[in-house]
Order: sequence, then structure tokens, then C-alpha cells
Amino acid sequence: MAARSILNSQYLFVTFTKRAYSSKADKNVAFLGLGNMGGYMAANLAKKGFTVRGYDPSKEALAAAAKNGITGASSIAAAVEGADVVVSILPSNKVVLDAYLGKDGVIAHAPKGTLLIDSSTVDPNVPKQIHPVATEKSVGFIDAPVSGGVMGAQNATLAFMAGGRKEDFDRSVPLLKAMGAKQFFCGEIGAGQVAKLCNNMLMGITGMATAECMNMGIKMGLDPQVLLDVLNNSSARSWSTEVYCPVPGLIPTAPSSRNYDGGFKNELMVKDLELASGMALGIRSPIPLGAVATQLYRIVQSRGYGQKDFSFIFQLLKDEADKNNP
Amino acid sequence: MAARSILNSQYLFVTFTKRAYSSKADKNVAFLGLGNMGGYMAANLAKKGFTVRGYDPSKEALAAAAKNGITGASSIAAAVEGADVVVSILPSNKVVLDAYLGKDGVIAHAPKGTLLIDSSTVDPNVPKQIHPVATEKSVGFIDAPVSGGVMGAQNATLAFMAGGRKEDFDRSVPLLKAMGAKQFFCGEIGAGQVAKLCNNMLMGITGMATAECMNMGIKMGLDPQVLLDVLNNSSARSWSTEVYCPVPGLIPTAPSSRNYDGGFKNELMVKDLELASGMALGIRSPIPLGAVATQLYRIVQSRGYGQKDFSFIFQLLKDEADKNNP
Repeated sequence: MAARSILNSQYLFVTFTKRAYSSKADKNVAFLGLGNMGGYMAANLAKKGFTVRGYDPSKEALAAAAKNGITGASSIAAAVEGADVVVSILPSNKVVLDAYLGKDGVIAHAPKGTLLIDSSTVDPNVPKQIHPVATEKSVGFIDAPVSGGVMGAQNATLAFMAGGRKEDFDRSVPLLKAMGAKQFFCGEIGAGQVAKLCNNMLMGITGMATAECMNMGIKMGLDPQVLLDVLNNSSARSWSTEVYCPVPGLIPTAPSSRNYDGGFKNELMVKDLELASGMALGIRSPIPLGAVATQLYRIVQSRGYGQKDFSFIFQLLKDEADKNNP
Repeated sequence: MAARSILNSQYLFVTFTKRAYSSKADKNVAFLGLGNMGGYMAANLAKKGFTVRGYDPSKEALAAAAKNGITGASSIAAAVEGADVVVSILPSNKVVLDAYLGKDGVIAHAPKGTLLIDSSTVDPNVPKQIHPVATEKSVGFIDAPVSGGVMGAQNATLAFMAGGRKEDFDRSVPLLKAMGAKQFFCGEIGAGQVAKLCNNMLMGITGMATAECMNMGIKMGLDPQVLLDVLNNSSARSWSTEVYCPVPGLIPTAPSSRNYDGGFKNELMVKDLELASGMALGIRSPIPLGAVATQLYRIVQSRGYGQKDFSFIFQLLKDEADKNNP
């Protein structure tokens, strides 16, 4: 029988049919994708008392996850069997679509009433394709990409940007809180991806601009630390100048200070900028700086530095300036 | 007789010849340029107990300054007569060079031992031209451009970025403190201008990028406030997202929320970006984003919006996107 319920929400009244949405019942989690990000996120869920069954095609990833209390599964179907919630963080549009909509995928095997949370960064059209299929099968689905990188995943300080039905978002919050510090409800399905792509394009441009301006000032003879102090106390300050300075040695915790390793890989920045560029193209929204930044991060990648943190662009600009001033 | 003195400085030992450098003696200030910025800066000096004689070619500016306790002078020569310190903030390379090096200019008339502080934003080569002439005439000279805009000038919260001899900078500090909140010694003569141009180019790019990304997200259907909240809690945050959002109505104190009036004029951004571009050209330092930003702020100006705050670029991008989606 259908039970009528009024949620504590300023946005909507909802009729439930299959189950009462209660986070108290959400203890069994299937986690898909145990890579750099997912490995830590799944570990944090296990640490906070969730029962986590994980799947990843990499045996190494499964073995590492086992040390953090995550039971390995041999397939997506095996992972999602009996799950209350499925969380995924996967590398591309195609992998996400296959994982959710494929014959052996999540929606074919997830129990009715399951909540599906996809934290991958993908084209907003991907969650828009998955959502109606999920609804048809009486499972909830939200897109909930993250900001904060590997360090944020490790320390559970990620910011989640979610899109979908408000009640699905509300249900997801206890899990998102176990994995991160902030949760934003951005609107209808796909809105989380839109917010994420706006954020990463802006981060990508600002980071490159910081590299460009720091390089110029240093070449003009300024002490790098003095210049950074000026920027951080003026109207040019940003997360890039305060936390992630692309010039090595100025901020000890920034990837630039450890040979540009262990940060947000340049190749992932290229991926996100290409997704953002595609989105902007679809609505014919002008992105003059975003377009230039996309091209230049691509050049970093084509020169063989795709595995380095995206702030490596500083080295490319520095190298050009060095060559021009032999 | 020359008196030998060791300054309280980690950088240098200095031999004084003409006078003991003591800020206690620096009470009589000549202020050149009583415009949007200079008017407030001179008023703050007067408010903090300095005796200020001002010069500006505009009679209106002189009349307004008189209400703030500034005695008007009929020429640069009349203003600097008997002054301990000269402070200037003027609109262009040419005006600064004329004011300092001209036949009727500062250096021809300033008493020996005077300290000259130029807070104009100009090509770093301008202070480099003035400095040796000043030294020859036994007057001190530093470049000390500012960040913080009209509001910073009014509230004495400006940041000063100074270049020149360290002892001249030290001597300037009591005056800079009367006009602002922060004082940075950036290095040799011209270094203040370099830091300022790096800052403003980075601010210009970041501001434009914020406009570009906010416009894209809003066109994709996001609530502007939600998008801004996400950016401000993620890795794309900056002074532009936190203080100066280019989308009207989100930050009440930002120029965008008062029809883009009363901020940092687009035409001044164009001027600073052209100075920065010239500097980068001189050392062949690549500025791919800075170059694009320069072109686009120029287009805003050529369309007749040079008097608007530079965050007006958002309206240009929005308008393009609107036209593309009729």
C-alpha cells in the first residue's frame, strides 16, 4: 500500500510507494570504483560504521580496500545484491553508462528502493540518461560529484554537489557526511555535474592565471615569496594562491612542492575542461578563457606530463620564458 | 657633515649624508592628484594629523579636498615648497613623468631630503627613469602603487606595494599606514609596479573567468546563489567569488549590485592589462590568458562601457549567450 508522507522540505511534497526513506535503514553500501578517490571514500564509509562491499576491476584496488574493512565483490551484480545504497566514482561517461545501464549493471541488479549515488564527474547528460531508467525500476538516483581531490577524499573533507530529487538528496546526506564536509543540493538531475564543471573550469583558469602571473613577476626579478604574499593580501587572492601555488617551494603542502605528484592530474583537468567545453558548446555560452585553458592543459598532456598535477603548467610557461631569454 | 647610521633593517647598512631619516619630522605632505583615489588618501593623511597641501588641475577636486582639511596649491611647485614628503597618484605614464621630471615638476622644486612616494600605477620603467634623477638631487623616491580600490582608499585599507631603497620605504611606512592597512616592500625601484601589475592581471583574468563560469552555469539552469555558494566552498573560490561577484544581486556590496558603478573602471583595467602586456612582451614571458583578457576588456570599452566596473564583462558574456539562445 502507498503511504503518504510530507517531507521536511521547503521544496516539495512527495508520495512514497515502495519504502519509507529512512537513512537509518541505509547500512549496506555497495561501492563501485576503488581508485585514488573511491578507495578513501569507501574506507571512510566503513570507518563510520557502514557495511561496505566494493567492486573494482583492479585486483590491487580490491586488496588495498580489504585492509580498510571493505569486502570485495567479483562483479557489479555481486556488489549491489542486498545493498541499501550504491555509491560510485568512475573515470568516464562510458564507464558510468555501462556500469549503470549495462546488462550486468547496477540498475539491472539493484534491489527496489535502493538509492544510487554517482560521484563521478561526467557530462550532465549522463545522469539525465540514467535517472529515468532508475525511476522506472523504482530506485533513486542522484548525481553527486565531488570537489577536494585525493586529500579531501582521504580526510573526509570533500564537498559534494548533488542533483536529483530533493528527497533522494536528503536520504544521501548521512553517507555524504561520512565521506565529506559539505553537501550542496544544486537542483534537478545533472545539476551537480553542472556545478562541478563550472567549479573545475574556474579552478583550471585561475590556476593557470596564477602560474602565468607568478612566472611574469619572477622573471621581472621579484622574490617569489614576496609576490605571493602581495597576491594573497590583495584582490588577486584565490584558492590557487592561498593553498595550491604552482611555484615549487612556497606552499609546502601544495603538489608543486613535491614535484607535482599526488594532486589533481593534468589529464583529469583536461577531461573536466573538455566536458565543460562540450556543455558550453551545447548552449552556445562563450568561454573565451576556458577555451584557451583547455588547449594549454592539452599541450601539457601531449608533452607527456598528463600524470603530473595540473599546476605543472607553471613549468611549461617558465620553460618558454627561459628559452626566450637564453 | 655626513653622519653614519645603522638602520633597523635585515637588508642593508646605509650611509646618510643630507639628513637623518626620521618619520617624526615628516609632517608636511604635498599631495598630487586628488581624484577618486587621491582625494580619499589625502583626506586620511589630514585626518591622521599630517599637514597636507594638495594640487590637482581640477578646481572641483581642490574644492572637495578643502572640505577634508587639505590646503589647495596653484601648482606642483607651490605644493611641494617646504614639503617633507610628496605623495602622488596620477593617471598615466606621461602625467607621472611630466609631474616629476618636467621643468615645473616635483624634482625641480622639492627641497633636498624630501621623500617622494608615487602611488600611480605605471610601467615599471617610469620609476626607473625618475629614481636616478631624484637621487642626483638628493631626494628619495619610491614607487608604491596600491590595491584595494576606491573603497580601500576611503577606509584606509589599501595595500601598498613598494619598490626602491629600503630606508626610503621604511621612512614612508608611517604615511602608508595612515592611508592603508598593508605595506609590502617588494624590492628595488619599480618592483612595486611589477607586483601591482601581476596582481591586477591576475585579478582581471580571475574576474573574467568568474563571469564566464557563472554565466555558463546559470544558462544551464543553476540557481545563481547556489552556484556561488558551491564555488565559494570549493577550489574555485577567489576574491572575485567571495567579494566581487560579477552577477548582480548576489553580493550587495559588489559593484555588480549597483549597476556596475563606483568600482574599478573597466578602462583602468584595460590600462593596467596593457601595462602588464607591455612588461611581459619586454621579457618575452608568455601570458596566454592575460592576452585574451586584455582583448575582451578592450571590447567592453569599445562598446561604450569603459566607465563601468570591470566586472561588467559578465553582461557582455550574458548578452552573447542570450543572443545565441533566442
